Amino acid sequence: MAEPPSKVSQYQSLIEKELAVLKLPEEPKKLYEPIRYTLSLGGKRMRPVLLLLGCDLFDGNIEKAISAALAVELFHNFTLMHDDIMDNAPLRRNQPTTHQKWNKNVAILSGDLMLVKAYELLNSCETENLSGILNVFNEAATKVCEGQQMDMDFEEKETIFIDEYIKMISLKTAALLAGSLKIGAILGGASADDSRKLQEFGKHIGIAFQLQDDLLDVFGNPEKFGKTVGGDIIANKKTFLFLKAFELADALQKRTLQNLLVDEGHPDLIGGQTSSGCLSQPVRQNPQLVRKKSVREKAKEKIERVTDLYCQLNVKEITKKEIERYYIKGMQFLNETSTSSEKKSEITSFVSQLMIREL
Amino acid sequence: MAEPPSKVSQYQSLIEKELAVLKLPEEPKKLYEPIRYTLSLGGKRMRPVLLLLGCDLFDGNIEKAISAALAVELFHNFTLMHDDIMDNAPLRRNQPTTHQKWNKNVAILSGDLMLVKAYELLNSCETENLSGILNVFNEAATKVCEGQQMDMDFEEKETIFIDEYIKMISLKTAALLAGSLKIGAILGGASADDSRKLQEFGKHIGIAFQLQDDLLDVFGNPEKFGKTVGGDIIANKKTFLFLKAFELADALQKRTLQNLLVDEGHPDLIGGQTSSGCLSQPVRQNPQLVRKKSVREKAKEKIERVTDLYCQLNVKEITKKEIERYYIKGMQFLNETSTSSEKKSEITSFVSQLMIREL
Repeated sequence: MAEPPSKVSQYQSLIEKELAVLKLPEEPKKLYEPIRYTLSLGGKRMRPVLLLLGCDLFDGNIEKAISAALAVELFHNFTLMHDDIMDNAPLRRNQPTTHQKWNKNVAILSGDLMLVKAYELLNSCETENLSGILNVFNEAATKVCEGQQMDMDFEEKETIFIDEYIKMISLKTAALLAGSLKIGAILGGASADDSRKLQEFGKHIGIAFQLQDDLLDVFGNPEKFGKTVGGDIIANKKTFLFLKAFELADALQKRTLQNLLVDEGHPDLIGGQTSSGCLSQPVRQNPQLVRKKSVREKAKEKIERVTDLYCQLNVKEITKKEIERYYIKGMQFLNETSTSSEKKSEITSFVSQLMIREL
Repeated sequence: MAEPPSKVSQYQSLIEKELAVLKLPEEPKKLYEPIRYTLSLGGKRMRPVLLLLGCDLFDGNIEKAISAALAVELFHNFTLMHDDIMDNAPLRRNQPTTHQKWNKNVAILSGDLMLVKAYELLNSCETENLSGILNVFNEAATKVCEGQQMDMDFEEKETIFIDEYIKMISLKTAALLAGSLKIGAILGGASADDSRKLQEFGKHIGIAFQLQDDLLDVFGNPEKFGKTVGGDIIANKKTFLFLKAFELADALQKRTLQNLLVDEGHPDLIGGQTSSGCLSQPVRQNPQLVRKKSVREKAKEKIERVTDLYCQLNVKEITKKEIERYYIKGMQFLNETSTSSEKKSEITSFVSQLMIREL
């Protein structure tokens, strides 16, 4: 019998409910409040949902997988909290980031504790699977840290090859999706081969998601996807689109791209926040306004110029094809698992919901 | 038969050796080099040694406990790396701290990964004990974070009672010593009652150690203990000595202490570093030198005044008694464990080496 189509939203509600009643002490306030705050900001809860779907795929009792699902969500939120410090990000899900709302020390320490709490949750898994699950989790956690460091290294690196970029996102983004699915599979009683296949599915889907994020940043409909168009361009992010464009560009186009990259990033234009740099200028109303306007206009112009170059080089279509390639490869791994097609369709429908076909 | 007296140093060498060959990849360099750097800075390796001694106390095979011993040492170093960011500390074991040698982002991320690696090491413990050991470890890790937050909260709090301070150090400092001993005991095959007693031993000894640190900061021989005298006073740290003095002070003495606390801290005088504040002054040689000298002199005067007050209030003797009280209470717990007195003497001799009787 086919599963009811609402399974994903059931799981999402379950995760929300469980996160809301997560047992955390009141004191010290500055340690536990940021954790509650971060977990309350919502999100698609993609990782825990995939973990539960992974468990269900092998007819596992998802009750046994809830703690592990919460663990991957806590881990993910820990990484966001620390990444936001490192990236100096003012906003996350349209709300102030923890280091912005409190301070950096609070965000470091609360993040640390969130990681410990993730392990605490993992430790409520049945003993027979504990060591195996910890293995998968630790491997994913290591990859996420390695990916984040690679990403930061890229900021200072002149030449980045596409395959290095794919490696970076497969660590930073895809490894935790893959690990979540594998943990779900193990808890669902999957064979080693099926668990590995589900992990590979997660890895490829994760890469596709990240490439899609890169694409939407430039070509997405801001109203539809809730993102400021061109944020990555302004922040001089070396995304797949940028690297592909650079690869295909002729000498003149390369120089144009390089010149645009030398431009100082203006993160204040991304988060909609006023930069403190502006505020610390001598207070004379008119010149400040004039300067501000010109920064905004410069940013708009930069986005237009880069987008124009991307269009000349057919980068949009190339990226779409690349996304499709990873998506299809991922789906092949899913299809190869020895599970019923009814069960597979739950995961497929969830994942395809997250894929945007038309732009 | 009595154990050879060199067991502690055997264990210390073993830990050093194992840390040196810890399997860590080369890349990304900025992620793994700081971990290797931090672990190479040495230290007494108190926590892993106590863990191994705890295991040996119950005739456990210490081979089985080595991974867990390394795990607590990695955890400890992770907390130091992150605490040093939070405290803005330039030096650790007379070497530049990670955030100083690289940068804050590197110290955040390498610290995070060190915590993950600690769990990875724990996961090599035999499966039958894994969940129990994780429980103890997670509890200790949570307490360490709570203690660190309490410590930071104290900086902004006007009144701190002695029992709050003891609670803070029992979390920040003692919990990991206690947890290390308990993990050792569990791996050594101790009963639940004996494991708990060894944990209590560790907790009380840990408190005694921290109080001794507080005492040595003021009354220690700088050549003997390798610490700058008065560092806590200059940094306006609310130590046991300060809080006890404040508790016993009359109205005039209280006011003096409060006034001294209002003084800006001068961390540059502790680490032997020039403060960036000084460097950012307009560059005119002579006034700068004059100002610098006067800051140093002011610091010296402050240390003298506070020390003088401590002497008037008999705080040195009171602290020594308090240390003795926790030490004796800890020893009682150790003696109550159902183990041979020969085995106990190894731990006793290690711990008493770390206790300074005469100042």
